[in-house]
Amino acid sequence: MTIEYINGKYLSSGEAAVPLEERGHQFGDGVYEVIRYYNGHGFMLEEHLERLEKSAGEIRIDLDGGIGRIKEIIEEGVEKSGLKDCYVYLQVTRGIAPRNHLFPKETKPSVSMTVKPASALTRDMVENGVAAVTHADERWANCYIKSLNLLPNILAKQTASEKGCYEAILHKDGRVTEASSSNAFIVKDDTIITTPLSREILPGITRAALKDVCDTAGIRFDEQHFTVREMKQADEVFITSTTSEVLPVTTIDGDPVKDGKPGNMTKLVLELFQARTQNR
Amino acid sequence: MTIEYINGKYLSSGEAAVPLEERGHQFGDGVYEVIRYYNGHGFMLEEHLERLEKSAGEIRIDLDGGIGRIKEIIEEGVEKSGLKDCYVYLQVTRGIAPRNHLFPKETKPSVSMTVKPASALTRDMVENGVAAVTHADERWANCYIKSLNLLPNILAKQTASEKGCYEAILHKDGRVTEASSSNAFIVKDDTIITTPLSREILPGITRAALKDVCDTAGIRFDEQHFTVREMKQADEVFITSTTSEVLPVTTIDGDPVKDGKPGNMTKLVLELFQARTQNR
Repeated sequence: MTIEYINGKYLSSGEAAVPLEERGHQFGDGVYEVIRYYNGHGFMLEEHLERLEKSAGEIRIDLDGGIGRIKEIIEEGVEKSGLKDCYVYLQVTRGIAPRNHLFPKETKPSVSMTVKPASALTRDMVENGVAAVTHADERWANCYIKSLNLLPNILAKQTASEKGCYEAILHKDGRVTEASSSNAFIVKDDTIITTPLSREILPGITRAALKDVCDTAGIRFDEQHFTVREMKQADEVFITSTTSEVLPVTTIDGDPVKDGKPGNMTKLVLELFQARTQNR
Repeated sequence: MTIEYINGKYLSSGEAAVPLEERGHQFGDGVYEVIRYYNGHGFMLEEHLERLEKSAGEIRIDLDGGIGRIKEIIEEGVEKSGLKDCYVYLQVTRGIAPRNHLFPKETKPSVSMTVKPASALTRDMVENGVAAVTHADERWANCYIKSLNLLPNILAKQTASEKGCYEAILHKDGRVTEASSSNAFIVKDDTIITTPLSREILPGITRAALKDVCDTAGIRFDEQHFTVREMKQADEVFITSTTSEVLPVTTIDGDPVKDGKPGNMTKLVLELFQARTQNR
């Protein structure tokens, strides 16, 4: 069953749980993670926890009890859910305090969580790939922090959806950063290329898994910038995220990528990635 | 007394009111206004309502019942509070829906509000001015929308506070945009200069009031860009916002502005501004 949790308390679905003057609600003053459980195992759970700790640290939210305590909360929640394949959404905010930009003193962070059944990607998405649009990256300067300030991401993804597309691939003056809720990759001459880590992009967990997959399999993996133009002329394009896993992008701005079908390299790394999710 | 309200319901203070899967709480997917009531009158209430409508429209939240309905909610809340001098904080989010970046279908926006006693600025702040730091403007591209994505503002203001300062004046590569929660002004040769309206800054209501004050009084008011360097060499510097009204800035990054005392032009426009707040 679906689980909702906040600060030590399990809720009935949709129950009011957050006061108005919660800094998540009024400022987006918090960070989060989405973790996929495959067959009862949290995939790269430690990496998610480390990233959460880093995100929280960067905005100076002190995780009460550290990531050890967060891990306990997640594991208890998943166990209560009875779900083997699920998404854990976990959010930490700076807590409850009278509205004021300044950090409240002596306020404990709020930890909230939902656990929900995971839905596998549709066969159509995997076999035919998805459509994407390009969109200006209008986000703030610190997208390496997985914060709750997601309005620009929402607006970009909604624009994509209204054009019949799954994702918006973001760029700054033609230089690709990442997508609205995933990392972006191109394949050129059998080399996988993705934007290098910086303050501009999220260090995706699936991105890290993919890099490791490539290292292990001897696939060339280059972290370098590429442009929208280079992406449109690439052999293959794909995106990665916890919920999208590895997903071929077969049209961009209405034009097919190469022949408009998922490429062999994308299929190979998807297969290698999926093998990992099943073996942990 | 202090009032808390959400979607037709008045709450006891600090009561849990919002479910976890509210788009304010999970995405900062909403907009807000802070309105100051002076002696029972909402100062520039219509202008605040118009800006709220514009902000909501820009992120495509449909105000249920329009700003007429919002105005009724505000006026009822203020009446219930029994307060003559108060701040109304009013927030509209895209509402409650299972977490997904895409706009939910058939979800009604949530309207929440607090009404609290207003505190006058301290005599010290007005008579001696406040200290500011300069800080990189790390916000998103659409700061003309008064959205709930306030993390960069919070972090900048907190940095200022920890340096013993009241406000952070933001700049892009040395070009001043505005401050973390106020508009920024300089005075040079008896001309008031402030950053022109664009997507980069919030069209402040107090800024608009001040412009009108200057027009009426025959004070030169120029909307043009200025740099951090020009600001530091200006005759006077001040900031405006609903809560800060018109506040002299007398030191920046630890150095005094001119002789480190509020300038005559700032005092004049503050006086003219305050007269308006009392006459409406």
